[in-house]
Amino acid sequence: MPLNPIALLDYAGVAVFAATGALAASRKQLDIIGFLFLASVTGIGGGTLRDVILNLPVFWVANSGYVLICAVVAVLVFFSAHRFESRYKLLLWLDAIGLAAFSVMGAAKGLAITGSPVVSVIMGVLTATFGGILRDLLAGEPSVLLRPEIYVTAALAGATIFTIGDLAGLPALASSLLGFAGALAVRGGALKFGWSFAAYRSRPGRRPEDIP
Amino acid sequence: MPLNPIALLDYAGVAVFAATGALAASRKQLDIIGFLFLASVTGIGGGTLRDVILNLPVFWVANSGYVLICAVVAVLVFFSAHRFESRYKLLLWLDAIGLAAFSVMGAAKGLAITGSPVVSVIMGVLTATFGGILRDLLAGEPSVLLRPEIYVTAALAGATIFTIGDLAGLPALASSLLGFAGALAVRGGALKFGWSFAAYRSRPGRRPEDIP
Amino acid sequence: MPLNPIALLDYAGVAVFAATGALAASRKQLDIIGFLFLASVTGIGGGTLRDVILNLPVFWVANSGYVLICAVVAVLVFFSAHRFESRYKLLLWLDAIGLAAFSVMGAAKGLAITGSPVVSVIMGVLTATFGGILRDLLAGEPSVLLRPEIYVTAALAGATIFTIGDLAGLPALASSLLGFAGALAVRGGALKFGWSFAAYRSRPGRRPEDIP
Repeated sequence: MPLNPIALLDYAGVAVFAATGALAASRKQLDIIGFLFLASVTGIGGGTLRDVILNLPVFWVANSGYVLICAVVAVLVFFSAHRFESRYKLLLWLDAIGLAAFSVMGAAKGLAITGSPVVSVIMGVLTATFGGILRDLLAGEPSVLLRPEIYVTAALAGATIFTIGDLAGLPALASSLLGFAGALAVRGGALKFGWSFAAYRSRPGRRPEDIP
Repeated sequence: MPLNPIALLDYAGVAVFAATGALAASRKQLDIIGFLFLASVTGIGGGTLRDVILNLPVFWVANSGYVLICAVVAVLVFFSAHRFESRYKLLLWLDAIGLAAFSVMGAAKGLAITGSPVVSVIMGVLTATFGGILRDLLAGEPSVLLRPEIYVTAALAGATIFTIGDLAGLPALASSLLGFAGALAVRGGALKFGWSFAAYRSRPGRRPEDIP
Repeated sequence: MPLNPIALLDYAGVAVFAATGALAASRKQLDIIGFLFLASVTGIGGGTLRDVILNLPVFWVANSGYVLICAVVAVLVFFSAHRFESRYKLLLWLDAIGLAAFSVMGAAKGLAITGSPVVSVIMGVLTATFGGILRDLLAGEPSVLLRPEIYVTAALAGATIFTIGDLAGLPALASSLLGFAGALAVRGGALKFGWSFAAYRSRPGRRPEDIP
């Protein structure tokens, strides 16, 4: 694959998501193989779902370089994670970068294959969020989906900006960078300033056993 | 897709499962985008698994109307969920309707593609249960699978009735309605009267750390 | 499918993973249909992921004998599980056998389809671990992935031994048995003697709400 901007976003997204998987492994005090496993599943999970749904050859089966990136990142994090004061904050920020990169990558593949803007946006959101969902499920972390500040919205912003830019005839580089920057700005602002929408606040759900 | 009875069941199933996803989002006090996300994943999750396993084009990639249904339902629930006294009971009843609709839809696609009654029944059960499983996993709800009253059995009943009806030469409308009604009767009875099988009762599992 | 050694490993892996799913159902005191469901999902989950990623026809759609094996195993466990002193220990040991069988099966299919040793090893690990991951997620069991003793490493050993043996020109029987024995020795040793790698020990992760 030539190093066009979208391919770079793809490699970068895999690498930073792999780092978040390795940080989750560090928080759970797993061994080096646990780091490799969680890094790989998180790094390639979103793109795997995207390719399976679009009925494309799965990207890392065709090019195993992606898996080697995950392995290198896992080893680097294994030997350096103790240096960071808050691994969870680092995880959230790297997750934000991966989210931004994959929201564009997912939308780009979805639009190229189907031509439908609706499918493009959905594929962007699914690709951007699924790796982190898998990581949290497998590591027993509280799901990033359920955190109060804005998350899925950032992926939606990135995918929508890319899709509009592409349909408006912008070059791939421009619409990719705009989508990436838009998603990162939304998610970064949410992390830094606690941005959130007016959530559904009337009352939390009761536990099923407390319902008469 | 023409509005034959099976297509209607399909749209209805997507809509009611989307509503259960939105109700779970309401119980977790998510924002509007969280409602859209959980509604969509729950509404289209079961059918996505079905199409991926049968190696068919994923239904909502070919027809994005399904996703728009999920979005509309999510918005409606966002503005009305506080009116319901027990959102969890409503969730369980809508889940029952979705379960019944998808047990028929899954079996119908499975039988049409493979001709195998065994595969047809399994696809009915998987399609009917996977959306709810995903919803409970992503929302951190207690899994509907592990509730004491009958659940998977209802999907099995619907898929089996449809499959037998279809193989016996009944028209699609008749076998679909019989399967839908059968599944809904079983699950509705379980919800209303607490129907359950003799479960495996000898003793619950110990926590792993308590096993010598 | 003729009964070559790899096909035998495949049936055996499905059967023992199905038994672990049924044992998890027993620990959760589910009914007979819950046993059938968890046994089937655990037994066929890993191979389903393998075939979907490799874009092959899903093995149990083409040959529903696999599902019948799961059903028979589920019924046997339903009527016998109370006889075992520790169902969880039995679950872990059967899981070890399934892990060993599927690490070879996954690698064999991955290598046959792609010719890439890297993909072969990854498919072995994914196939071997995914059924157990699904079982633990669906049954609400503590994930076997997060246990302190060696787990993923055993699948990695089995898949690597098979792949090296096959590339070195060994007959399928020899490389399959070597891979199976290697994986079982590693996981069995971990279960019996508590083998573990030097894990990442500096400090466990804090809960997100405790991070300033």
